[in-house]
Amino acid sequence: MWEIAPEFNALIVFAEHRFYGESLPFGNKSYDQGNIGYLSSSQALMDFVDLISELKHNHYRQYPVVLFGGSYGGMLAAWLRMEYPAAVTGAIASSAPIWQFTGMTPCNAFNRVLTSAFTRVSHKCSHNIRKSWKAINDITKTDYGKSWLSTTWKLCEPLKTSQNVTDLKNYLIDVYGNLAMVNYPYPTGFLAPLPGHPVRAVCKHLLKEDLEGKKLLNALFGAVSVYFNYTGDAQCLDYQPSLIDDLWGYQACTEMVMPMCSDGKHDMFEPSKWNFNDYAKECYEQYGVLPQPFHAKNLYGGKHISTASNIIFSNGQLDPWSSGGVLHNVSATAQAVFMADAAHHLDLRASNPADPESVVEARKYYRTVIQQWISQ
Amino acid sequence: MWEIAPEFNALIVFAEHRFYGESLPFGNKSYDQGNIGYLSSSQALMDFVDLISELKHNHYRQYPVVLFGGSYGGMLAAWLRMEYPAAVTGAIASSAPIWQFTGMTPCNAFNRVLTSAFTRVSHKCSHNIRKSWKAINDITKTDYGKSWLSTTWKLCEPLKTSQNVTDLKNYLIDVYGNLAMVNYPYPTGFLAPLPGHPVRAVCKHLLKEDLEGKKLLNALFGAVSVYFNYTGDAQCLDYQPSLIDDLWGYQACTEMVMPMCSDGKHDMFEPSKWNFNDYAKECYEQYGVLPQPFHAKNLYGGKHISTASNIIFSNGQLDPWSSGGVLHNVSATAQAVFMADAAHHLDLRASNPADPESVVEARKYYRTVIQQWISQ
Repeated sequence: MWEIAPEFNALIVFAEHRFYGESLPFGNKSYDQGNIGYLSSSQALMDFVDLISELKHNHYRQYPVVLFGGSYGGMLAAWLRMEYPAAVTGAIASSAPIWQFTGMTPCNAFNRVLTSAFTRVSHKCSHNIRKSWKAINDITKTDYGKSWLSTTWKLCEPLKTSQNVTDLKNYLIDVYGNLAMVNYPYPTGFLAPLPGHPVRAVCKHLLKEDLEGKKLLNALFGAVSVYFNYTGDAQCLDYQPSLIDDLWGYQACTEMVMPMCSDGKHDMFEPSKWNFNDYAKECYEQYGVLPQPFHAKNLYGGKHISTASNIIFSNGQLDPWSSGGVLHNVSATAQAVFMADAAHHLDLRASNPADPESVVEARKYYRTVIQQWISQ
Repeated sequence: MWEIAPEFNALIVFAEHRFYGESLPFGNKSYDQGNIGYLSSSQALMDFVDLISELKHNHYRQYPVVLFGGSYGGMLAAWLRMEYPAAVTGAIASSAPIWQFTGMTPCNAFNRVLTSAFTRVSHKCSHNIRKSWKAINDITKTDYGKSWLSTTWKLCEPLKTSQNVTDLKNYLIDVYGNLAMVNYPYPTGFLAPLPGHPVRAVCKHLLKEDLEGKKLLNALFGAVSVYFNYTGDAQCLDYQPSLIDDLWGYQACTEMVMPMCSDGKHDMFEPSKWNFNDYAKECYEQYGVLPQPFHAKNLYGGKHISTASNIIFSNGQLDPWSSGGVLHNVSATAQAVFMADAAHHLDLRASNPADPESVVEARKYYRTVIQQWISQ
């Protein structure tokens, strides 16, 4: 955006999503039961429409508005153009998995694409990760093993209970997902300080074929260290679930229900089925709410969006979220852009000499399309 | 609908709008402050999407859905297709004044069209009504005059205060509006039992040129009797504001802000400016809420609806609400149908030999268009 804006003599406005950051509709009581219910994508969309209306009313009456968003922000950008076409001229929706919801995409698609980002570096890499779950399960069966792993992996909280082990494995699942998302071709600090091509850097530790047991777990620690300790400053590995995820967790437990599963064959994870009832139970325990699996589909049209116009859906080949993305044109002016060698919304980042050609081309195309939109 | 449905082998579903009738989301506490806030057009739309989703899910998975609505129901039908095109194939939006909101239509347009329905019968008719306000004001200046009018007009509640006089005048304004709306070519009982061409029947009493003072008021009582006592069963004329209007009043005081005014020249009413601040004050006093004049525009796009598709906006020439209707095509498949000699959503009523040709033609066209929509 920073590079394109001057070419269009455009104002850049960053709108903060309600509840995230300082936009707290009920001040420090915003997270209370009864108030948190106002956290939803549709409320956020209406906020943005109000903001745009205010801006137009006060200063920028005649200016066309083009939305840019990545990930959930990309979904919002696309939905806003679909629901409120009078408010905005068009939307660049990057890595927006609007089809990740119930009934739209197989639940194992995300993990399949995620795994392919590791397999792409080396089949051995994903294979060793697939083997590692059993190695962790085996060694943590004994107190000695738990202690060994806690020491060897420098865990902040030593493993004591089976819940600790589950938390550690969930942490690893998140790490692999994050690595695939930010698998950018140059060093970045988006989710963590990381080298360029971080999946490659991680896989370097996992290229031997004969890794088993402690040897495998030692290698894995080297791999994971790339993520949690690239700077070398970390004192210990904190695998505890983060409270920061609570807001998205609430949305995932109300309207943003994205079924996930793995089979251990097409992906590198332990087999795990999608069980909506268990999911609903956890949601109820944690937030006191029950998820509405078809709400997003009813709100935003699911796969029936042929009336959408002036939207670019871009997705990166390396990005696990491309599994729920729009990968084909849905109408004459709601088009898909698929970028080889690109991770999660790489196209929205600043230009970099290491960018793949696909991303350079995509950005050129956005300029052309935006020009068309605003001259309509 | 009853006539078209069998031709399409269609199921007819009437969806009740939340809060109106038996659809009370909080039972007998639905009208409490804090609960009544859930009465809004957007909540109603989402109800309908949920209902359609349920119906499709349980029984009618492959069936296309076509909406029919008149007046506010027509607005909802059009908005539903615009906002949730995945849920419905198309909408027949009859007499739907979606452009009656702030900044879209001059505030005197409604009363101008209303007056023309009376002038069309005879210039003398609207002229006598225009003169009658002063006659009412003059005679009610004295207690004797108030008493005379109360007796002559058989008022249920004798006129005592100036508020009574205001209420009586507001009642008359409503009556003229209702008469214009239901100015159907055959006897009906929609808002009141009425003869065919009721405006003609009313104006029959107001065709003399020299009507003044008591003579004029006597004639006016004859005219108004057509509306409140066509059956001859009414004991007295009840001009008190009705509580039934409270729900729409609440919506008009929140999102459905439709500016209205009159000038006494282009219309037959006393001059009355649109004053948003006064309006807001009344809303606050009556419902404890402040109206949001631009909310409907932000929600539904106002005049920028060129992305709309598969909608028929039909309007009748005699209908005052046509003032806020869509009278020209807004896109290739969102089209306007203007019906000569037709009042408020006459096209949605059962066929009648007295129907004007324009309405017969409109209904034929709906069949063709719906066939196109569902075969897409």
